[in-house]
Amino acid sequence: MTLAIFPGSFDPITYGHIDLIERALKMFDKVHVAVLVNANKQPLFSNDEKMALIRRCVPSKRVEVESFEGLLVDFARTRGATAIIRGLRAVSDFEYELQMAMMNRELAPNMETVFLMPKNVYSYLSSRLVKEVASLGGDVSNLVPDVIERELKGKFQTKKTP
Amino acid sequence: MTLAIFPGSFDPITYGHIDLIERALKMFDKVHVAVLVNANKQPLFSNDEKMALIRRCVPSKRVEVESFEGLLVDFARTRGATAIIRGLRAVSDFEYELQMAMMNRELAPNMETVFLMPKNVYSYLSSRLVKEVASLGGDVSNLVPDVIERELKGKFQTKKTP
Amino acid sequence: MTLAIFPGSFDPITYGHIDLIERALKMFDKVHVAVLVNANKQPLFSNDEKMALIRRCVPSKRVEVESFEGLLVDFARTRGATAIIRGLRAVSDFEYELQMAMMNRELAPNMETVFLMPKNVYSYLSSRLVKEVASLGGDVSNLVPDVIERELKGKFQTKKTP
Amino acid sequence: MTLAIFPGSFDPITYGHIDLIERALKMFDKVHVAVLVNANKQPLFSNDEKMALIRRCVPSKRVEVESFEGLLVDFARTRGATAIIRGLRAVSDFEYELQMAMMNRELAPNMETVFLMPKNVYSYLSSRLVKEVASLGGDVSNLVPDVIERELKGKFQTKKTP
Amino acid sequence: MTLAIFPGSFDPITYGHIDLIERALKMFDKVHVAVLVNANKQPLFSNDEKMALIRRCVPSKRVEVESFEGLLVDFARTRGATAIIRGLRAVSDFEYELQMAMMNRELAPNMETVFLMPKNVYSYLSSRLVKEVASLGGDVSNLVPDVIERELKGKFQTKKTP
Amino acid sequence: MTLAIFPGSFDPITYGHIDLIERALKMFDKVHVAVLVNANKQPLFSNDEKMALIRRCVPSKRVEVESFEGLLVDFARTRGATAIIRGLRAVSDFEYELQMAMMNRELAPNMETVFLMPKNVYSYLSSRLVKEVASLGGDVSNLVPDVIERELKGKFQTKKTP
Repeated sequence: MTLAIFPGSFDPITYGHIDLIERALKMFDKVHVAVLVNANKQPLFSNDEKMALIRRCVPSKRVEVESFEGLLVDFARTRGATAIIRGLRAVSDFEYELQMAMMNRELAPNMETVFLMPKNVYSYLSSRLVKEVASLGGDVSNLVPDVIERELKGKFQTKKTP
Repeated sequence: MTLAIFPGSFDPITYGHIDLIERALKMFDKVHVAVLVNANKQPLFSNDEKMALIRRCVPSKRVEVESFEGLLVDFARTRGATAIIRGLRAVSDFEYELQMAMMNRELAPNMETVFLMPKNVYSYLSSRLVKEVASLGGDVSNLVPDVIERELKGKFQTKKTP
Repeated sequence: MTLAIFPGSFDPITYGHIDLIERALKMFDKVHVAVLVNANKQPLFSNDEKMALIRRCVPSKRVEVESFEGLLVDFARTRGATAIIRGLRAVSDFEYELQMAMMNRELAPNMETVFLMPKNVYSYLSSRLVKEVASLGGDVSNLVPDVIERELKGKFQTKKTP
Repeated sequence: MTLAIFPGSFDPITYGHIDLIERALKMFDKVHVAVLVNANKQPLFSNDEKMALIRRCVPSKRVEVESFEGLLVDFARTRGATAIIRGLRAVSDFEYELQMAMMNRELAPNMETVFLMPKNVYSYLSSRLVKEVASLGGDVSNLVPDVIERELKGKFQTKKTP
Repeated sequence: MTLAIFPGSFDPITYGHIDLIERALKMFDKVHVAVLVNANKQPLFSNDEKMALIRRCVPSKRVEVESFEGLLVDFARTRGATAIIRGLRAVSDFEYELQMAMMNRELAPNMETVFLMPKNVYSYLSSRLVKEVASLGGDVSNLVPDVIERELKGKFQTKKTP
Repeated sequence: MTLAIFPGSFDPITYGHIDLIERALKMFDKVHVAVLVNANKQPLFSNDEKMALIRRCVPSKRVEVESFEGLLVDFARTRGATAIIRGLRAVSDFEYELQMAMMNRELAPNMETVFLMPKNVYSYLSSRLVKEVASLGGDVSNLVPDVIERELKGKFQTKKTP
């Protein structure tokens, strides 16, 4: 059985992430979506919200959703993963991704980083952009599933109401 | 009548911005300089200061200076703009610009993003660099108009005096 | 009246080119498509074929199709152009385009180079790729208009038949 | 059973290629090394030589070596492949690779392109550089297996002897 | 006598920095390692700690360690430096480095910026990554000298103990 | 005594090259301009012409002009050079330069590659662009010294006259 880890912040999950998970499922028996718990950042969604939303948007039985702290490669090793999945979008991306991948290889020489290309129409997509657009009242229905769109509306309405 | 929006933070306006506005005026009947109000960032100049300084540095009758909040493409649409003007400087720039332009096209398919190239000697210029150099007492007279240079000196002297 | 030059090899014209011409027409009164005659290269289509195909694919009255030799900026000047239109696709592209644009500015300081972004689905498209795929029998119907597809088939069948 | 295609010119195979094949074998049951027959280019090694050398350098039973003409995605489909393997080295690389991958996806939506990162010390390596260095009498023993080094010496001695 | 300035945050010094200092010593008679005092950032190590650690890791008599505030080029001029040394790692790096170098040249036309390439195995290395890995309990013994490794462990243990 | 090698095709030398040689002379006691003899390429100027033109344009006693065949690092070693000088212009440049520098380090670990930044106004300049512009009758007086301009005119007139 081959297992791949798909790590990220998922604040929130977008069609870009979902597209990559589906591609990974063609190559690996199982995909673990690993939500990074980052004590220093202030996410819009709590860890539990993020995981619940991913589970609703990616209901496959071959996908598991977990959160992790600490080194990604340590987490991947404890799960018996063969590979870490990353999406490639743009050059700046690519540089950073390559740097992280080299560092991860230094820390865990047997863990492969596999880069997949999202669908062309999602190549500009990021959770940060989605939040920015939603916070300004823009339409994000082409960028995230319905459930995420509703949750984003809820979050930003609450924020504005004193 | 063709109208282009030139959006930015303009904290403060530099010779690089002025160069791009002049280039845009060759192609469009009017250019609206749109100062982004960003509640999350701590600018050096207030919104009113930024607008007053732009008006002094770009006195053309075909240029209007406004501030905006919310989605840029919504603002551009309410003004009846044909295009959004952006300057291209370096690769990292280019990637981010392209991403924003794609997102804007998703939100407003009829709004064109037009990329212009600043004069070669301004290709390294940014408001951030200008502020950094001025705050350290460096000479910025080749980078910004006299009025901006004086204002920067005033800001950084005030800061140091207890 | 504003006039823009859209230069290129157009060997042959693709949906990517057509998309850019339509965007330019939103900003300029007229667009001249300028087919570069390059004595050193062996194009698949002759100069006359290229121009006839562009005319068929872009029938607008505000578009004119011409060929040119020599310096692009000299040609643009004789036509009274305000700007040269270029498409931006990828980083390598961007670097080369910026270099050409800087050289053109050195040669003709008043001629602006304007960069437009093609539709996302055409961001990978180039005449070279289209020819390569067509020569290997691949389907290019999503990449070029019908008339171009037929012409490509004709060219490559002729080549194989001794 | 999962199968991946690793296409290339392999003129000749280097430690960089071998490193990528070994990484692919961790994720896929079988890897087909596919030598591109390109009628327009003048390779140093014949197609048969290339395939024989790959077989000697990568003796695994899970690796098969073939040559192909025509569209890569068509070849990959006839073999029942899940994915096409590509190595990522540098930015220019990345851009071109992404363009090819997008074109391949257009032609075969179900065929995934998977990018792997070669070992750090091979990140500058290419068959072209190896041939250049070997042709000038430089030491390539850290870049290619012994058998390739000997073959390169033979090729370039023959060339110089009239 | 030629003198080069090697500026940076050095929070903390890594094998990548040490590698670059050794390369600079081949070309210049003296190298001044200049630790930037940045009032706005919260470093892990104090200025005095940083300087003491650099001195322990680079004991050469031709190397001096200093801290500086204000404009780098002003500091370099007061020391009579010929050049500023910078390391090149990746593209994003390169863009930023080039921008800084152009700004420095504007401010001090006679001060050269010299770019050197770190050893391949250190090409992904940065103080930020080292701190991140160490804070998560990862092994950094291949990335920094022993003394730095111990200091990092001390820092992060103290942080966790209430 | 420190010696640097500045290699290239110099077909012909431009103000960009001259600018870099002058920068190198600030750091090294001597600079050897090394004209690469490339049997496979058809240069516009012969090897002897290139060397004579460089000598006229760079008359410093600390500069020597030579031609070389074979591996650059072997040539540099026989001259007792400390470093190889390269100019950095754009990203694509940078990638290729880094690859060459890594290969050269593999072949000669003690030979440093030093990257210098040309003057901003020469950042788009290349011998290829100069030849292209001159061949089309464009003005290159800002790009190359007078003597080179005259030689280029001579070359391209001869070519046109049957």
